Amino acid sequence: MDTQPVPPIARHNSPGPDTWRDRLAGFDRAMADHAAQDWTGQAIFLNERYEAARAELGYWQAMARAGSALPPLTGLIMTVKACFDTDGWVSSCGSQVLQDTPPATRSAALVHTLRMAGATLLAQTNMTEFAYGALGVNTHFGTPRTPLDPTGARIAGGSSSGAAVGVARGYCDLAICSDTSGSARIPAAFCGVVGFKPGRGRYSTDGMHWLSTSFDVPGLITTSVAVCRRADHAITGSVMDSLPHPAAIRLAVPASLPDMGVDDGIRDLFNACVTAMTRVGITIEEVPLTSLADSARIAAEGRIIGTEAYALHHDHLATDFDRYDPVVATRLMNGRDNPACHYMKALRALSACRDRFDREIAGYDGFLLPTVPLWPPEVVDLRDEATYLTLNRHAFSLTEFANRLDLPSISLPVGKFPVGLMLTGRRGADNALLAMASVLEPLAATLHQPV
Amino acid sequence: MDTQPVPPIARHNSPGPDTWRDRLAGFDRAMADHAAQDWTGQAIFLNERYEAARAELGYWQAMARAGSALPPLTGLIMTVKACFDTDGWVSSCGSQVLQDTPPATRSAALVHTLRMAGATLLAQTNMTEFAYGALGVNTHFGTPRTPLDPTGARIAGGSSSGAAVGVARGYCDLAICSDTSGSARIPAAFCGVVGFKPGRGRYSTDGMHWLSTSFDVPGLITTSVAVCRRADHAITGSVMDSLPHPAAIRLAVPASLPDMGVDDGIRDLFNACVTAMTRVGITIEEVPLTSLADSARIAAEGRIIGTEAYALHHDHLATDFDRYDPVVATRLMNGRDNPACHYMKALRALSACRDRFDREIAGYDGFLLPTVPLWPPEVVDLRDEATYLTLNRHAFSLTEFANRLDLPSISLPVGKFPVGLMLTGRRGADNALLAMASVLEPLAATLHQPV
Repeated sequence: MDTQPVPPIARHNSPGPDTWRDRLAGFDRAMADHAAQDWTGQAIFLNERYEAARAELGYWQAMARAGSALPPLTGLIMTVKACFDTDGWVSSCGSQVLQDTPPATRSAALVHTLRMAGATLLAQTNMTEFAYGALGVNTHFGTPRTPLDPTGARIAGGSSSGAAVGVARGYCDLAICSDTSGSARIPAAFCGVVGFKPGRGRYSTDGMHWLSTSFDVPGLITTSVAVCRRADHAITGSVMDSLPHPAAIRLAVPASLPDMGVDDGIRDLFNACVTAMTRVGITIEEVPLTSLADSARIAAEGRIIGTEAYALHHDHLATDFDRYDPVVATRLMNGRDNPACHYMKALRALSACRDRFDREIAGYDGFLLPTVPLWPPEVVDLRDEATYLTLNRHAFSLTEFANRLDLPSISLPVGKFPVGLMLTGRRGADNALLAMASVLEPLAATLHQPV
Repeated sequence: MDTQPVPPIARHNSPGPDTWRDRLAGFDRAMADHAAQDWTGQAIFLNERYEAARAELGYWQAMARAGSALPPLTGLIMTVKACFDTDGWVSSCGSQVLQDTPPATRSAALVHTLRMAGATLLAQTNMTEFAYGALGVNTHFGTPRTPLDPTGARIAGGSSSGAAVGVARGYCDLAICSDTSGSARIPAAFCGVVGFKPGRGRYSTDGMHWLSTSFDVPGLITTSVAVCRRADHAITGSVMDSLPHPAAIRLAVPASLPDMGVDDGIRDLFNACVTAMTRVGITIEEVPLTSLADSARIAAEGRIIGTEAYALHHDHLATDFDRYDPVVATRLMNGRDNPACHYMKALRALSACRDRFDREIAGYDGFLLPTVPLWPPEVVDLRDEATYLTLNRHAFSLTEFANRLDLPSISLPVGKFPVGLMLTGRRGADNALLAMASVLEPLAATLHQPV
């Protein structure tokens, strides 16, 4: 399945009979690959339904043979992050604190919608405990590794760690995940797949377990922009924008990029992407987007995520403190004593910052950054807590802009590197962002080395 | 004007030429009365436009003589509380802290809408400093008195103190005000007029200066339910419900009423209202609405208003602490150190409480209470801070339910007493509430003594 091309976008795109045979064979090969791996200490799935998924594909195959019109996502395999309810599975959020709670009795709206649209559910994916960490380290269920590192020493990123590895290894086509500071885009970048964070309100949060009520949005990790657009279309029903001509695309690069601590090799790859895009006629200009850095300062001073996360975890921390990952528990406790006025002033300041960003970006369709400023670290290097906290903060330093300012944002694979090219669009312009991403995707994907 | 009957509800209800002559004469009498009073220490208006208002009425009269169709609120006189922006006036919120700020350069949406609908703006009304107090005491601009006490010793209530007195003395037909804990209904009850607090979102908050972002709603104080419904209709455009037959109205009285500390005389008047309503066929039953007391406990423990108010005043308190009313400043400072998690947990608990109330009230169209459990205190008795704080808390103890649970609520005059009969409706059922209020209004208004 991992070598199978993505079907073209169409309302009813069921594969023909021959394609179905390939599809089932591909699924079997993928599951054989999954069975052959040693997942000890790096679990990507916390619950699975391989047999049921195969039977479902067989059912769709039979329906296709009978000439039935099939729903639009038929044939696509899907996973769901452990912080979304799925009927019959425990929503553990990757934590032993919730491991013994009863299984969910209904599925999150997003799970339900995509299944109704024909996607076949395969598994529930591992994640950073309670999604509170950008590296995917999970001391209880294990820490997934990026398949782009053949030695298996480097992390997959997080918090949607299992989601990204599942897509990158070809076990599925799309993964439902969440994104608070970059949790969809960071592991997508490290694993060489596509990660999409929509604007707030675009996807239902029904049945999602929150980390930060101000920043969380459901997101998607997919094999390609085409799959992402098909899933987005099935969820929202909104008309897909047609692909813009490159000459009609105007993008900004923040003038503050040199101050963002991007690794030299990653900056070279980013610059190569910019060069490739400029060559096909896309306008790219350096723009002083000062609201980006302001938003970071406001969110940090107001401790927005920590405060909201502590409030949500208050009761569990009181009774189950010792069952939390110690690093996660410490980070949550940091939100305990924040005065409400600091928090509320920060929310108001962010709102003003959003309006200012809208003015700064006027005249451009979005801005470009590397998704993550560093290469995926090795798991062994993260055992030291101070190192972990430093690298964690650095990992989400470029992605969280979009959460603070409520912008749609997508990470695209750069060549075969564990590096993402991130395109962030204007507020509310999710459709336009996805259409532009389709134009940029092949330019970034074909980069083999920095130029 | 104060003796003039309210015109019947109609889309185009412009008075005929004779009525217009009466209207102008009534306006002149009202303004003569206003000019004859000594407002020292009890100002009700902070800004006025008597001449312009009279000219505007004259213009409408001329238009009416010319046979023009007039907008629906033509001929009604209006005031606006000093916490709503009005083009050309300083939005002081009744505080010397803001007294020297520049005048507003545009009017709040609600002011604009009502003027476009034909209402004539007369004045800006006094209020408790920053609306933070239910008694209407204002140490800087003075404390308005209820006209129902001929000795002039008793307060008008607050925080919309000037608004209620202006309507009660016949200087205007309607007053734009706000209601955080009862600020429209409490002074309406003390002054013998109608006070309406709609559900959240019904009236635009554009141009309103907030006290509590969770509880504030714009409201109306009017001479009658009919004027209130006409204004509400002009604002919302929603179709007015036809008046229900009394036998079709089912109302609850909270079983916890005996624990609410209602003064004996007020309870006797309330019971007389219930008797009068039962007599015309309205069903009234005692119902255990335990979510009411729960909502009070949650809001107090989470310090919701204090916390939100402190966050909004943080900057001003830092620079202008000494210019605040000391009691208001002290109350604001109480919200300073509240941890955000307490506040957020309280908001979540209130949300659950709202859902529980919806279930408790199922089968009833609303519930009845006295608006305020005490008689209007004398101004001299409020000089002692402890007494002030105790009476203030007591004054809003029955009205704030509707703000916490986001319910429409209206206070109706009971006879000529400074006592309100409060009808609180189901969430979202503002139209039904106003129609029921039209049925109850004459029953309460004709009570001359407890029976």
